[in-house]
Amino acid sequence: MKKKDNSGCKKLNLRQTARFLKKHDNFIILTHASPDGDTLGSAYALYYALNEIGKAACVLCPDVIPSKYDYFARPTDHVKRENATVVSVDVADVKLLGALKDEFGDSIDLAIDHHISNTQFAKNLYLDAQAAATAECICELISIMKVNINDITAKAIYTGIATDTGCFKYSNVTAKTHMMAASLYEFNLEADKINRLMFDTKSKKLLEMEQMVLENAEFHFDDKCILLTVTAEMQEKTGLSGTDLEGIALISRSVEGVKAGITIKQSGDSEFKVSLRTFEPVNASAICKKLGGGGHKSAAGAKVVGTLEQVKAKVLAAVKEELEV
Amino acid sequence: MKKKDNSGCKKLNLRQTARFLKKHDNFIILTHASPDGDTLGSAYALYYALNEIGKAACVLCPDVIPSKYDYFARPTDHVKRENATVVSVDVADVKLLGALKDEFGDSIDLAIDHHISNTQFAKNLYLDAQAAATAECICELISIMKVNINDITAKAIYTGIATDTGCFKYSNVTAKTHMMAASLYEFNLEADKINRLMFDTKSKKLLEMEQMVLENAEFHFDDKCILLTVTAEMQEKTGLSGTDLEGIALISRSVEGVKAGITIKQSGDSEFKVSLRTFEPVNASAICKKLGGGGHKSAAGAKVVGTLEQVKAKVLAAVKEELEV
Repeated sequence: MKKKDNSGCKKLNLRQTARFLKKHDNFIILTHASPDGDTLGSAYALYYALNEIGKAACVLCPDVIPSKYDYFARPTDHVKRENATVVSVDVADVKLLGALKDEFGDSIDLAIDHHISNTQFAKNLYLDAQAAATAECICELISIMKVNINDITAKAIYTGIATDTGCFKYSNVTAKTHMMAASLYEFNLEADKINRLMFDTKSKKLLEMEQMVLENAEFHFDDKCILLTVTAEMQEKTGLSGTDLEGIALISRSVEGVKAGITIKQSGDSEFKVSLRTFEPVNASAICKKLGGGGHKSAAGAKVVGTLEQVKAKVLAAVKEELEV
Repeated sequence: MKKKDNSGCKKLNLRQTARFLKKHDNFIILTHASPDGDTLGSAYALYYALNEIGKAACVLCPDVIPSKYDYFARPTDHVKRENATVVSVDVADVKLLGALKDEFGDSIDLAIDHHISNTQFAKNLYLDAQAAATAECICELISIMKVNINDITAKAIYTGIATDTGCFKYSNVTAKTHMMAASLYEFNLEADKINRLMFDTKSKKLLEMEQMVLENAEFHFDDKCILLTVTAEMQEKTGLSGTDLEGIALISRSVEGVKAGITIKQSGDSEFKVSLRTFEPVNASAICKKLGGGGHKSAAGAKVVGTLEQVKAKVLAAVKEELEV
């Protein structure tokens, strides 16, 4: 996506952003909806750092913060809306503010982000698209501001970096990412406990869901394609839905030889959410466009209506065309 | 395990080890049996480094090297047994040399290792028990020897470090581990591809195995214990056995609330290998001792004979006692 130059949005560099934060005294920090480790880790690390230098701050999240983040995400003080400086972290688009969009969407003073697709909705923007996580930006900001950090701040930053990189697995990792992680080990980080909680802990219900998904897994086109299905019935039986099921699509991209991993999740009586994960040269975005959706080259999605069998047939036909290219 | 001071084994420091390697010219490098990413990554990184400074070297592995390591593990030259200096890497005990034990067990000139339990079988030993992986030791050695490394050497070192730390997840990771990883990003590392291959690629057969294992998963003692079973029939059906099944025990330690994860794998008509993974305060080693086995506090094993039902009952009884402590 090409950046459009919104004249209302001033791009700041790291030093200017640090100066901006030092100049103000009361902060409301916003995370995106369906909060993940990076938006929360970034928000709390910034919160603790601002507290450390005597600023008032609070963190607002549009959704309930999952309890697994309790080790760093604690209730914050209340900062009054009037005269507060509003900062969003890891928010690429105002739409992603969810329930907070109406109140804050038009009056964000500073956005700190690493998404190249940031829509420049804020008055000021610090964007580092090379950073693996927004928490990397926050870590650099704290460092340039010469603010002391402590164990809990280190845990928050580490969580952001680890979760956005699949624990240093993905292609967004750079030497800098590892250097930062190294610097956080000065603190009582307990990274192994964080990683266990973030990556290696699943509920009994999710295990049950995975079993059902695997039981019904279908292989197509000489095993170049796997199709996983999550029916409404399976969601009802396990009580799992929405973000609980994010991990299922990961299964579809982990099978040897598979070039196209399809996950079909029922979202209504005759409505299904299709998630597609592909490997070169198969283009997920091109396939999902045909289905009325969109996304990236290796991860895309679409909503498709029909019976489960109709939806499967539609998706498989679209995948087949692309596999044959 | 307390180190016994075998008078025949000379402990070298890093500088002495580097000098030792520089002094000799023909090397046979040995890995342990059932080779993993660390023993192979260490062996090949050392091989490439020795080649770089004009030494003859070869890598010998007691077992077939799995093809997933092909990106750095290539056929090496042959070095004659006479007058060769024999170096083992990541080998904690001569027993682990498997098929190479008889020929080399008594004549290893140098062992490079990070296992605190190293039995000091070699004439010279460089042991860094703080290192997360033997590949960390090799990386430091190469650095102190001022040998240039290249892309393939970097990939080998990275593989050793990543695989022995679960991709920087485990408690053995230190600041140094991350600093080394950072330094390897100077090269064309393609760490994301390495990590996908090492951590996120499973065969269709393994997926089938996981489905069967999950289908038969049992929860006990208020869900504090999960019991997974891999029968001979399941191994036959999928064609998987031995190291193919290492990942199954990981499932048993990934379920929320579980303090003791049991994996029972059939290894004979009425013989079963029990793998136990526990979390504090449950002591896996204590439980497996009762079953005639042993291991570490959080990971231990035992061989138990009987019918599957008898073995299950024995193991569950032993776990129950420990859970009640």
